[in-house]
Amino acid sequence: MKAIGFKKHLPIEEEASLEMFDISKSEPKGRDLLVRVQAVSVNPVDTKIRGGSEGTEEAEPQILGFDAAGVVESVGGEASLFQPGDEVYYAGSNQRSGSNQQYHLVDERVVGRRPAQLSMAESAAMPLTAITAYEALFDRIGIVPERNRGASVLVLNGAGGVGSIAIQLAKWAGLNVVATASREETTAWCEQMGADKVINHHQPLFKQLQDAGYDGVDYILCFTDTAQHWSGMAECIRPQGTICSIVETEEPLPLTDLQAKSAAFMWEFMFTRPMYQTEDMIRQHVILDELADLFDQATIKPTLTETLTPLNAEQMKEAHRRVESGKTIGKIVLEHWQ
Amino acid sequence: MKAIGFKKHLPIEEEASLEMFDISKSEPKGRDLLVRVQAVSVNPVDTKIRGGSEGTEEAEPQILGFDAAGVVESVGGEASLFQPGDEVYYAGSNQRSGSNQQYHLVDERVVGRRPAQLSMAESAAMPLTAITAYEALFDRIGIVPERNRGASVLVLNGAGGVGSIAIQLAKWAGLNVVATASREETTAWCEQMGADKVINHHQPLFKQLQDAGYDGVDYILCFTDTAQHWSGMAECIRPQGTICSIVETEEPLPLTDLQAKSAAFMWEFMFTRPMYQTEDMIRQHVILDELADLFDQATIKPTLTETLTPLNAEQMKEAHRRVESGKTIGKIVLEHWQ
Repeated sequence: MKAIGFKKHLPIEEEASLEMFDISKSEPKGRDLLVRVQAVSVNPVDTKIRGGSEGTEEAEPQILGFDAAGVVESVGGEASLFQPGDEVYYAGSNQRSGSNQQYHLVDERVVGRRPAQLSMAESAAMPLTAITAYEALFDRIGIVPERNRGASVLVLNGAGGVGSIAIQLAKWAGLNVVATASREETTAWCEQMGADKVINHHQPLFKQLQDAGYDGVDYILCFTDTAQHWSGMAECIRPQGTICSIVETEEPLPLTDLQAKSAAFMWEFMFTRPMYQTEDMIRQHVILDELADLFDQATIKPTLTETLTPLNAEQMKEAHRRVESGKTIGKIVLEHWQ
Repeated sequence: MKAIGFKKHLPIEEEASLEMFDISKSEPKGRDLLVRVQAVSVNPVDTKIRGGSEGTEEAEPQILGFDAAGVVESVGGEASLFQPGDEVYYAGSNQRSGSNQQYHLVDERVVGRRPAQLSMAESAAMPLTAITAYEALFDRIGIVPERNRGASVLVLNGAGGVGSIAIQLAKWAGLNVVATASREETTAWCEQMGADKVINHHQPLFKQLQDAGYDGVDYILCFTDTAQHWSGMAECIRPQGTICSIVETEEPLPLTDLQAKSAAFMWEFMFTRPMYQTEDMIRQHVILDELADLFDQATIKPTLTETLTPLNAEQMKEAHRRVESGKTIGKIVLEHWQ
């Protein structure tokens, strides 16, 4: 069967940066599902893994990809949540072979039924970013819609993949949402996602918040360079507020900037649960099912903006190029194996 | 009336490092209470303020002190929680003149009725440390006893003022408590406070936890040097766990150490609420009243270990000397004005 990956970590301009491989199909065991993958999406993490440790060569082809939507082909002996024929979507695990293959093994505890009202491509666009945004808001920060209604959240990089769905989920939870963008089209997109106010992350944040009538914000979601925005975030966060970031940084940070305010800093990494096989790993199944309901009720909208076909190495390279440009809005999906 | 403070920031060996001043008594306005202070305790923050900016001279005498227990003498026109004659305890605010004076003004929203079963000295020992430990466990980390029963917490520096009461409150909440100490007498004290296990913070923490059968801990309370214990804490915290510290540090810290685990870092600073006059400032009144109930039911015990008399500049210097030694166990109180 077909699979897209690489043996050498190379810049995307190189022919061999992503290649089609012919690998063998496995049988599902335990709680695994074998999924016939119909559409996949590309996230910044894909490009980081491909480009990381540039030049080094892997012994085996590394199959990339996390987000996928498809149909359950067969199930392992201990699987109980899904049956062959079920249409599913998931972001999988960073500890296993990726979703850019025709038949893919995934633990059912991180899989959801795909939203019936969405296309296969729209479904494939959502899992990684939606789980990330959902976990950040509700599992890390711990926002409870009934209790936190009216609280304010600043979403740094609102037009990216995670930002686009985070704005919508924050609005669904009743929050007042300030998003950041820096171009006309990204600003318009943030408004379309539901942001109450859009400010520019290339200008001082606190001054812009004040001009818009905010004395600060209760929560900050950082979906861009954490180190670069550190002092701006420390200034904007209200006493007892919480900053949650998904972007790791090499730079040590002056944590004491948050001390007088008793503020908190949290990481959200959507692979923590599958990576550490936490007891509550099945939570991602629950989250994906809840998100499917929200999509099917049209409470939240898919953030797919570009669909590339066919699903081959050339188009995958094109998707990586666009994601690496840092200028994409929403999500890019590939479908139809060739 | 009498008040103890300083005009010059000096080492405690200097005669003028703490002096008795004669200052005038004020009238309470708004939600203020005028409290006849009968006992006060000394915390590390007192010695830091006195010793800070060494050598600089203040225009007016700086009256030190936070913790106090005493009797309400009179109340401001908008006060509604207390009446003259009520016996109270509180840690006050870092924005106002301190509690080391015979009659002290304090906002009633940060005052509680003192525990009836405790002595005045035992009551004065508790507010700052107990509010800090309570806020860290329940308001910052957000532990809910019914939900988090059986979770594990590591209390770094369990025998200090905050550690001693934090161990007890964590046990009350149903947690499994590992405390750290480094001497025989502090180890015994942690056990007396209820710690399930005591390890040594001068030895590698994770190895000791493993030897004791823990794969990590769900929460860490850091009541000692945050920078020094950073990597140890990053190693010990379980995936999705939370570290809460009260000790600020000049050193920038490698926050990304916590990223793969989606772990959180929170500050607890008990003066955040009065300092920023947060909307929920009255929470400290509620906390002190709840703590008074817990003391009166003997669910938790006062952590007073030394009472110095009389309450004058000489004894205050002795208390500062002991706190600065870093070897005190529990709390030191002064009473009986002279």
